Amino acid sequence: MIIHIISVGRLKDKWLREGCAEYIKMISGHAQIRETEIPDEKLPDSPSEKLIAQALSAEAERITAAIPKGSAVIAMCIEGKQLSSEELSAGLDDLCLQGKSTVTVLIGSSYGLADSLKARADVRLSMSRMTFPHRLAKVMLCEQIYRALSISSGGRYHK
Amino acid sequence: MIIHIISVGRLKDKWLREGCAEYIKMISGHAQIRETEIPDEKLPDSPSEKLIAQALSAEAERITAAIPKGSAVIAMCIEGKQLSSEELSAGLDDLCLQGKSTVTVLIGSSYGLADSLKARADVRLSMSRMTFPHRLAKVMLCEQIYRALSISSGGRYHK
Repeated sequence: MIIHIISVGRLKDKWLREGCAEYIKMISGHAQIRETEIPDEKLPDSPSEKLIAQALSAEAERITAAIPKGSAVIAMCIEGKQLSSEELSAGLDDLCLQGKSTVTVLIGSSYGLADSLKARADVRLSMSRMTFPHRLAKVMLCEQIYRALSISSGGRYHK
Repeated sequence: MIIHIISVGRLKDKWLREGCAEYIKMISGHAQIRETEIPDEKLPDSPSEKLIAQALSAEAERITAAIPKGSAVIAMCIEGKQLSSEELSAGLDDLCLQGKSTVTVLIGSSYGLADSLKARADVRLSMSRMTFPHRLAKVMLCEQIYRALSISSGGRYHK
């Protein structure tokens, strides 16, 4: 299985880059992992709804261009479905059984993802009712992907 | 308001220590913040239920001794109640209005917290249906506390 994480904006903080790198390395023992960072649209402080929609739309075009053909798509959004780590693990296994060899996970900017992307995703996944910064959400997601793969392979990481 | 975070086990990873330090510094602009790290009981790989219960009980004694008298207590546990960031913010405000000047938040070891601690807590709080490592949960919690305080003070961090 190939896991492809597409995120918007650069992880500027060193500690977040190190955290992601740690989990990505752990994931690479179980699956092929690819990462794509899409540049985020620059917005003023307190942007209008219209400006936000335009930015999300521009980001969505770049994200769409980066999704491999035939890949399953998981869109991260707070209003998505919450899964336990075991359910996420089973969900990834199911995609594999359905013949999906690539799973692309999308993490938007601090304004999230365009509605069009959420609508086309196979799964809309929420990690929490709480709002986390998208930068921290990426580390949390990488940890969950590693945990899910570890559960599938019967490893001892998850207890 | 004084926020007191009691966690079990040392944060060994530099990136996690840096992440916590970043949010703790941000919290300190809004509230007094105290941190106590309780030593965790050493357990073998694949410990028995009995050994785990003994370890949780020993950790619970140390945690209890560190909770300031009269403090409100929030116990972090996966089976707890999920709150949105806005609800957590309102909850902290409520505790303040009830005259609780200290809120102590408990994060257990990788085996969680003893049932006795969860039973005595004013709030059992869950951040996610997913299982996160307690080390990463501490960074997530610090971010949420900062976000909650920022929402209460009308800051622009939360959007």
